[in-house]
Amino acid sequence: MQDSLVKDLYAQYEEGRLSETEIALEGWVRTNRDNGKIGFIELNDGTSFKNIQIVYDGDSVLGEKMRHYKTGAAISVKGNLKLTPGAPQPFELKAVESELIGDVDADYPLQKKRHSFEFLREIAHLRPRTNTFNALYRVRSVLAYAIHSFFFEKGFVYVHTPEITTNDAEGAGQSFEVVTRAKDPYKDFYGTTASLTVSGQLHVEPFALAYRNVYTFGPTFRAEKSNTPRHASEFWMIEPEMAFCDLKGDMEVIEALIKHCIRFVRAHCKDEMAFFNQFVDKGLDEKLDRVLNSDFKVMTYTEGIEILKKAVADGHKFDNPNIYWGMDLQSEHERYLTEAVAKGPVFLIDYPKEIKAFYMKENPDGKTVAACDLLVPLEGEIVGGSQREDIYGKLKEKMEKAGNAEGLAWYLDLRRYGGCSHSGFGLGFDRFLAYLTGMANIRDTEPYPRTYGNLKY
Amino acid sequence: MQDSLVKDLYAQYEEGRLSETEIALEGWVRTNRDNGKIGFIELNDGTSFKNIQIVYDGDSVLGEKMRHYKTGAAISVKGNLKLTPGAPQPFELKAVESELIGDVDADYPLQKKRHSFEFLREIAHLRPRTNTFNALYRVRSVLAYAIHSFFFEKGFVYVHTPEITTNDAEGAGQSFEVVTRAKDPYKDFYGTTASLTVSGQLHVEPFALAYRNVYTFGPTFRAEKSNTPRHASEFWMIEPEMAFCDLKGDMEVIEALIKHCIRFVRAHCKDEMAFFNQFVDKGLDEKLDRVLNSDFKVMTYTEGIEILKKAVADGHKFDNPNIYWGMDLQSEHERYLTEAVAKGPVFLIDYPKEIKAFYMKENPDGKTVAACDLLVPLEGEIVGGSQREDIYGKLKEKMEKAGNAEGLAWYLDLRRYGGCSHSGFGLGFDRFLAYLTGMANIRDTEPYPRTYGNLKY
Repeated sequence: MQDSLVKDLYAQYEEGRLSETEIALEGWVRTNRDNGKIGFIELNDGTSFKNIQIVYDGDSVLGEKMRHYKTGAAISVKGNLKLTPGAPQPFELKAVESELIGDVDADYPLQKKRHSFEFLREIAHLRPRTNTFNALYRVRSVLAYAIHSFFFEKGFVYVHTPEITTNDAEGAGQSFEVVTRAKDPYKDFYGTTASLTVSGQLHVEPFALAYRNVYTFGPTFRAEKSNTPRHASEFWMIEPEMAFCDLKGDMEVIEALIKHCIRFVRAHCKDEMAFFNQFVDKGLDEKLDRVLNSDFKVMTYTEGIEILKKAVADGHKFDNPNIYWGMDLQSEHERYLTEAVAKGPVFLIDYPKEIKAFYMKENPDGKTVAACDLLVPLEGEIVGGSQREDIYGKLKEKMEKAGNAEGLAWYLDLRRYGGCSHSGFGLGFDRFLAYLTGMANIRDTEPYPRTYGNLKY
Repeated sequence: MQDSLVKDLYAQYEEGRLSETEIALEGWVRTNRDNGKIGFIELNDGTSFKNIQIVYDGDSVLGEKMRHYKTGAAISVKGNLKLTPGAPQPFELKAVESELIGDVDADYPLQKKRHSFEFLREIAHLRPRTNTFNALYRVRSVLAYAIHSFFFEKGFVYVHTPEITTNDAEGAGQSFEVVTRAKDPYKDFYGTTASLTVSGQLHVEPFALAYRNVYTFGPTFRAEKSNTPRHASEFWMIEPEMAFCDLKGDMEVIEALIKHCIRFVRAHCKDEMAFFNQFVDKGLDEKLDRVLNSDFKVMTYTEGIEILKKAVADGHKFDNPNIYWGMDLQSEHERYLTEAVAKGPVFLIDYPKEIKAFYMKENPDGKTVAACDLLVPLEGEIVGGSQREDIYGKLKEKMEKAGNAEGLAWYLDLRRYGGCSHSGFGLGFDRFLAYLTGMANIRDTEPYPRTYGNLKY
């Protein structure tokens, strides 16, 4: 007899082809209760968010054994599957045989009571066994696949941009350095200083000029000493780059990707997403529906500033009410534009060049760049993108000012060897996962979070 | 008129539904030749390994312009698609309009002549535009997707294990450390020393005890000062872990994964794989067929040693002919076992415990551990796996000997909180890509290779 998986049993049940046969299962005890005559174990085998109910006869030798299984124990069970129409669960397993595979020490921290997320962060190796984190990391996995499948279907080439890089430019002091324990730790291994990447974008652009459509999806790092629910020092980023593509094309890809991910996760994580909507964020379903059912709007930064000024004049209270053209918008401003004005996702485009990165394409007005930030209700910015400066002279001048023209000579090369208009964007994977699940803290969305002052495991 | 993609044109042609309509294309000139009366451009638009032939009338204003397009230039072309039965290419585009989008400076290094891989390594930002590297990085992308799709279909949960870790144990001196430029660079950011991960296995195991079947797939690092074609200091690893799974189950997953990847890459990279078979490794197709068509064999390490001893006695010449039980096998020994003995892929199992890692399950003989290395013809070992020690006392003793029982107390926890038999393996992604394409040097399989003494880009 082949062992069964709980996810298959539920799939068979939903397709109306679950039969009342003998099966064998392995899994972990979530709860165990008995009244002497009859006992019930909620067993989770890891393959499904849902448990399966095991029923045992309390008055038997078997019941005497099973009664002592503790929460968290690994067990095997053989028995007869019974459909239970009318009961809370659609079927259950009537135990015939069972073995204790792995017992649980008395100090097992995941007892029945509810635990705070803060407490669970201290036991990152055990929290995937709880409902919330079990749901969360399965969604994380499915979301990663949603992203890969989106780009694969569209013929994008996935590029593994390097983690260790010579480029420490963008973050000036916000990058980690990579050393060995040696006399000259900084130059011992590579003969030159090495940093952990803060973005794969510059390294993925050369591949767009070979494959047209490419993306990178991997870990990135920031040595930023911020202790907020949105900052981690290690996080995953998705960074696509499309050749022969302007800002409009860029925004089309962003909108399609976001919607694809929501649909894909909902289709493959029904139980998990229902759990988040019920227990973590009661407005989640509605929030995601609103994104799915709207055509993302477009607003220029300049229009946005005018609207915000008018809002202040009309008495709207911002923590920072000093609105002027050229400012960096705060989250409260972004949320006002997407929630009160656009009433849905909105791209804010054409930002002042002074507040954006050197590689963004200057618009004909000479003052703004072809950048887009996607703002979404209840969150603010979740994607930042731009068309890239493709005019060699303009880019060189900006890079000389930024002091990276020499170190990034290869990047400049792309503008003198068959350059073309190209665009791309960055989507922070962990923040996006938080957005999709309603989880408030990036420390929870990452299996082993690394933040300022915190490194466990 | 929507712009066309070359890959779509070939797909339509193969499905017999390519029509002779007007289309527009963008792409890069691979070659351009004319005889005054008629000109031909081989255009690659990045979406296909195959070029499309553009034909222009030399005697026209258009021809006068197109004649001057240089190799590497980005151009746009509008024209009429013509089927060309009997010609080397199945169809071509008769140009009607064209624009130069991005010119090429005179020092463009990718002129028509053939370049050595060594030379191309110096221009990693341009080499994806050459046939070999264009094929290679597309296969790399498709192979990554093959791996994700294999595990997704089987319900495995993909876990992003951390890059920055407290664990520098396994490699003793072979791990990079992560610092910031500060007074106390080693402890400034995290308050504790931080290393780059050498393996995600220990961090993924806790997730197997929550989800049953999981895997990690991400960058790993070794500060090993080896300058060989097989060593890189940064490389990607696939590390699955399965709960309620012994060594036999482990080997089943390995065999299924390897075969799935070969089939998937062949199905999605027909042109590229044909190119590798023709120009890079003439025996490639045959080599991969042999893997696909064989049932992987199993041989114990002890049997392997006996066979090698006999081979030496029978006069077989090894560089290292000193064969004894307890030795670490060299590549030449592994290749003898898979090529001359098994004549196909073979799992070598049950290694002496002294030469294997602390976490491997001790066999009842007390001398060997339940480990498996997959050996394949023409390469040697490509996968290493094992069942994990699940007995708390045994593992603790080994870890205390290895000196990591304290730092890895969380890892030991897994054996006291609902432990079970579980197994996993590691597959080096870059080496596997080299194996599948016949490329000999790991420096070529990585977009931006990082090796001892070498860090560019």
